[in-house]
Amino acid sequence: MTYRAPVSEYQFIFDHVVDFSKLLKSPAFAELDAETVAAILEEAGKLASDVIAPLDRGGDLHPAVLEDGVVHTSPGFAEGIARIAEGGWIGMLAQEANGGLGLPLAVATAVNEMMAGACLSLSLQPLMTQGQIEALEHHASEELCALYIPKLISGDWCGTMNLTESGAGSDVGALTTRAERNGDGTYRITGQKIFITWGDNDFAENVCHLVLARLPDGGPGTKGISLFMVPKFLPDAEGKAGARNSLHVVSLEHKLGIHGSPTCVMQYDGATGWLVGEEHEGMRCMFTMMNNARLGVAVQGVGVAEAATQKALAYAVERVQGRSPLGREGAGIIDHADVRRMLATMRAETYVARAISLACGVALDLGRTEPEQQARGAFLIPVAKAFSTDIGHEVAQTGVQVHGGMGFVEEAGAAQYARDARITSIYEGTNGIQAMDFVGRKLADGGEAAFALLDEIESFAEAARATLPKRAKAVWDAAETLREATEEMVALPLNDRFAGAVPFLRAFARVLGGHFHLKAAIAEGGAGPRARLADFYIKRMLPEHVALLAQARLGAADIYALSAEDLAAP
Amino acid sequence: MTYRAPVSEYQFIFDHVVDFSKLLKSPAFAELDAETVAAILEEAGKLASDVIAPLDRGGDLHPAVLEDGVVHTSPGFAEGIARIAEGGWIGMLAQEANGGLGLPLAVATAVNEMMAGACLSLSLQPLMTQGQIEALEHHASEELCALYIPKLISGDWCGTMNLTESGAGSDVGALTTRAERNGDGTYRITGQKIFITWGDNDFAENVCHLVLARLPDGGPGTKGISLFMVPKFLPDAEGKAGARNSLHVVSLEHKLGIHGSPTCVMQYDGATGWLVGEEHEGMRCMFTMMNNARLGVAVQGVGVAEAATQKALAYAVERVQGRSPLGREGAGIIDHADVRRMLATMRAETYVARAISLACGVALDLGRTEPEQQARGAFLIPVAKAFSTDIGHEVAQTGVQVHGGMGFVEEAGAAQYARDARITSIYEGTNGIQAMDFVGRKLADGGEAAFALLDEIESFAEAARATLPKRAKAVWDAAETLREATEEMVALPLNDRFAGAVPFLRAFARVLGGHFHLKAAIAEGGAGPRARLADFYIKRMLPEHVALLAQARLGAADIYALSAEDLAAP
Repeated sequence: MTYRAPVSEYQFIFDHVVDFSKLLKSPAFAELDAETVAAILEEAGKLASDVIAPLDRGGDLHPAVLEDGVVHTSPGFAEGIARIAEGGWIGMLAQEANGGLGLPLAVATAVNEMMAGACLSLSLQPLMTQGQIEALEHHASEELCALYIPKLISGDWCGTMNLTESGAGSDVGALTTRAERNGDGTYRITGQKIFITWGDNDFAENVCHLVLARLPDGGPGTKGISLFMVPKFLPDAEGKAGARNSLHVVSLEHKLGIHGSPTCVMQYDGATGWLVGEEHEGMRCMFTMMNNARLGVAVQGVGVAEAATQKALAYAVERVQGRSPLGREGAGIIDHADVRRMLATMRAETYVARAISLACGVALDLGRTEPEQQARGAFLIPVAKAFSTDIGHEVAQTGVQVHGGMGFVEEAGAAQYARDARITSIYEGTNGIQAMDFVGRKLADGGEAAFALLDEIESFAEAARATLPKRAKAVWDAAETLREATEEMVALPLNDRFAGAVPFLRAFARVLGGHFHLKAAIAEGGAGPRARLADFYIKRMLPEHVALLAQARLGAADIYALSAEDLAAP
Repeated sequence: MTYRAPVSEYQFIFDHVVDFSKLLKSPAFAELDAETVAAILEEAGKLASDVIAPLDRGGDLHPAVLEDGVVHTSPGFAEGIARIAEGGWIGMLAQEANGGLGLPLAVATAVNEMMAGACLSLSLQPLMTQGQIEALEHHASEELCALYIPKLISGDWCGTMNLTESGAGSDVGALTTRAERNGDGTYRITGQKIFITWGDNDFAENVCHLVLARLPDGGPGTKGISLFMVPKFLPDAEGKAGARNSLHVVSLEHKLGIHGSPTCVMQYDGATGWLVGEEHEGMRCMFTMMNNARLGVAVQGVGVAEAATQKALAYAVERVQGRSPLGREGAGIIDHADVRRMLATMRAETYVARAISLACGVALDLGRTEPEQQARGAFLIPVAKAFSTDIGHEVAQTGVQVHGGMGFVEEAGAAQYARDARITSIYEGTNGIQAMDFVGRKLADGGEAAFALLDEIESFAEAARATLPKRAKAVWDAAETLREATEEMVALPLNDRFAGAVPFLRAFARVLGGHFHLKAAIAEGGAGPRARLADFYIKRMLPEHVALLAQARLGAADIYALSAEDLAAP
């Protein structure tokens, strides 16, 4: 079976789990109503299921290749991306004044999840362009916006982000790519960038690179970096793709997964560029995009988790091995307790990751007018990114396990999900770095956003006691344990927090998961499939937060007590 | 850097952590002494590090291919395997009377770990032959043994196991391959087998297949199955490989990992075979091998974990990104708390998996003369297999994460470990099935072996209190919690146990890990790198057993409350 977009699931979460109703009343989205949102989700779901999903396997089997300096893309990808552009999905977040749909981030996040679940490698191409449009809208001159944004939205041109260099990955400030002033308002860019997602293709009229580089008077570190628009073809007088710029693709990486997404080494040899934002303010420009970009990656994890769950479930229903412990004649391995446990885990985790991501999107949307929601959105971003992508990979690996020996055979497709999802825990800031952001910046004010969220979780649990006393108590207790741990965490020196960052973030997601499952159960009146899934999660998975929080509080001393020599010991 | 066999680590575990000294005094190994063991480990270590490890990458890049009906193997594999045979390692477990080395399983297990760590795909070939020799020694006629075993030990011939069919995986009893009596003591075998590891190659004079098939009067299910020796070439009058038998390789699987290991679909078209053991007793013959085979797979997990840890550590020492929080000029990312935490976790987990596997091997060795040790060995087998292979994959995935973006690039080699290790949780009985064996058969007598082990853990912890009071108490408490959970588990109906099998097995391994780390720490007098690693493990990882045991006890009701339709919901 192939992926079917879980349209009704977004609808349920919007209606019952996150503050989407507030969004519909927000002045920022005055023209939006529930019917439109439903129609949008439906439309995107059809595209994802019927047009994009069938391209996924071909992208894996026939990766993009570099020939004669041009990246030739996987079968059908050009058409699939054209369909996404036609639907207006590339510009769904762009301002209406620029020709975009001006949708809320929450809705765009659901759409991005569907595209990623259908075909992760393909979906990265429009996603990169989405991000570029956002950066331009916030920071580029009117001229640049007018020239580039309509073509990016139409899909005639496309965008990339160029941050990483071989010596500058997580430490962006170490970059060495140079920018020099030409004296006519343009710049010359020289240097090599690596890990450039969709750095080139054989179908867009132009590939527009946003490149971080340092001007001669840019100081060391992140503060001396500027952002430039460096297109593959220089726009001519009519704004059409004209002369070739001095840049080229050096090579493509041979990767564990997302084979259909060309990951390029890009060389800039005095290429002509235009400044985006102010000189030396490049990092600030990048930061603007970072929330949306991280949320986009978060739902890549969710999307792959959804697809992997669907596939594993279908397999477990069909595959017969041994007698059903339930005595059902001809029943599949889903009747074996451990297999059903795995499937329920996949479903429960996928729901949590999705709810966190959509809650984050809604908060960022509401945050346009409400500072408290803005803070909540910022707080949830690293949780959404790190938890959802870890879950994406874990769920996909569980899917492999459900398939048994067939899981290891590429033909079955289960392994591809695991390989594809693996990158999402790494790029757009590794999940370790997300966790450091979470316990560092996001708790820097003493944890205000954390405590506001915990208050909300506890009052919901309080109210839920009437319907589901045991489950509500478990969630309330977990929130209280998390509150204590957060108080301790806030009081620790920064590097001690960093030592516990990963388990702390995971524990936070565990408790949020309890909250969101409880909300779903209550929406069903305490009985029904969602209530049963909530029961499963709250009893089986929520308790993990205790050990995670015990670990989170330990500080860094015992870690640093182990030297590199100790760890090499044998 | 390439893999270096951790020879001194086995020596330490033999000397201080497992009952190896008892083994040296055992009448079953009268001729063995500590110096010989040390020399054996040293010799195998050199071979693994210097000869086998360099072949690992080539096996991944240049998988075995099927051409003109013959499997052409990866570059250098033939020579590598020849060197393993020359060293006597294929026959290391075989009786001396048959030309083997007659080594203890514990020592062979260490050797098998090194070979797997050096190159998993290659190591499977001699491992399969090892298993075949064992099956023949226990069940085959003297004539068959005399004909086959010397050639298998020398590496001139090699062996495979043929169990699985497309409709008979975990449910071996569903197999349909037929055997018919020829009337001259031989049999005709007809059917198709899948997932046959090293089903063919281009260097051995003969490939000897042990095939499970059903005689016309064999009843349904596992009880009607017989085991046959079906060689690729029929032995001639002089016992040399003669006429071609009616069997062939249909195709090779395209797999997630272990590309260098050809996984074959085998077709038997009335192929001539010889009975091994009694008619209809084929499953009993397979069971004989199963302990050693599972232990062999367990240390595949350990070996890959070791190799992945070494690689990640080397990368983290060399790769500089950002300022060291320890203020060390030019220090690598190992100075970041979260990276060091990951590396320490990898090292701590690898140690636990290895200690469990070697403890299991020692128990099975001692079990030749001591029934209680035999029971312990049997009890530990599913823990060794499931925990070590899960850890193998998890550690390899953490290794990918330590590498950041490079982890996703195949050139770096970190991803290969994760891909290769993935199969070990699946084959030789999925880890779910291992866990079912653990809580089913292995607790069927009321948990005698479990409680004997817990008694030992508690008395050691009791004695350790004088040196490491806090750590010893933590281990003692964990053992006590596990004891209570085990008592509850034993009292549950079987399918309720199955529902909690996976978390229960994992919790058991967690507590065993606490015990083995404590032993290492005490061997060091409570201070030193092993004591620091024990500290890390006992504080950070041991606490996980609580949530795991909470889950293990829950029974199956909430799992079965979720139907396939519920799980498909969105």
